[in-house]
Amino acid sequence: MEIFRLHHRINRDPRIDTHLALVARIFGIEKVYYSGDKDSEWEDGIYRVVGKFGGNLKLEHVKEDIKFVKNFRGVKVHLTVYGIDFRKKIKDVNEEKNVLLIVGGEKVPPEIYQLSDYNLSVSNQPHSEIAALGIFLYEFFGGKFKKFKGEIEIGENERGKTILKS
Amino acid sequence: MEIFRLHHRINRDPRIDTHLALVARIFGIEKVYYSGDKDSEWEDGIYRVVGKFGGNLKLEHVKEDIKFVKNFRGVKVHLTVYGIDFRKKIKDVNEEKNVLLIVGGEKVPPEIYQLSDYNLSVSNQPHSEIAALGIFLYEFFGGKFKKFKGEIEIGENERGKTILKS
Repeated sequence: MEIFRLHHRINRDPRIDTHLALVARIFGIEKVYYSGDKDSEWEDGIYRVVGKFGGNLKLEHVKEDIKFVKNFRGVKVHLTVYGIDFRKKIKDVNEEKNVLLIVGGEKVPPEIYQLSDYNLSVSNQPHSEIAALGIFLYEFFGGKFKKFKGEIEIGENERGKTILKS
Repeated sequence: MEIFRLHHRINRDPRIDTHLALVARIFGIEKVYYSGDKDSEWEDGIYRVVGKFGGNLKLEHVKEDIKFVKNFRGVKVHLTVYGIDFRKKIKDVNEEKNVLLIVGGEKVPPEIYQLSDYNLSVSNQPHSEIAALGIFLYEFFGGKFKKFKGEIEIGENERGKTILKS
């Protein structure tokens, strides 16, 4: 599974898109593509987290999003509020080897709907692409979070903070 | 279940906190408290969505967050990366009548950890309080999204947009 974030805007989206990339990471996803503005500062921020907490997440900027989706070899899943309930198709998606999960924003070109094998929603109410991604991946990976070996690891604590440094 | 968002900053957080409030809404939550800056513009934005898409979500600003948590009558659950895996306790929480789900941010006062009956994590990796909230509520409500009667309703569509206006 790889993620494709459409249309990153350098002045508006770094924070939201940091959330997105880090949500992908907790499930062990290792590649997040993004179109829109190339944003090295945003990339660096995420790589700093990866450097401290571990894993192999890579970000890659894509110039032409429609062409990229068209040429992707595998199954394309587009998360959208207009789609059909993701649970109706998640088993089918889960059987596929190469999945590109496309996360849109406010203005998704109609081609993306057409080129996607599945247009899936996490409820048909407006909310958050971050939560939609989180819930989708949570189901997709059967509730399994990836374990990391990092410089910093956080331990479970009932009433405080446990931080382990290596 | 009610949500309490700690420490909203008027200049930084409206977008993130709009995501948070709208995620609460899709599960039928009707009250989101928040501390930090009172932000009428942010509230208005959310009420516009509620006005169009339906439901009864209300926002309420809280001046003194620690006092508010202390005085809340019910069970206090704090979502934090430092907590124990939420799935170990979600059944217990689910049996409670009045639950305040506290969503922190970068600097949560230690009192919040102390005053909370549960400090729970959605993975012990840094990611997104929006995704954490979404995944927590998804489990808590057994995957059930609330149905709304709104001026605008979105219908499921395999490859395009279905918008129903009343």
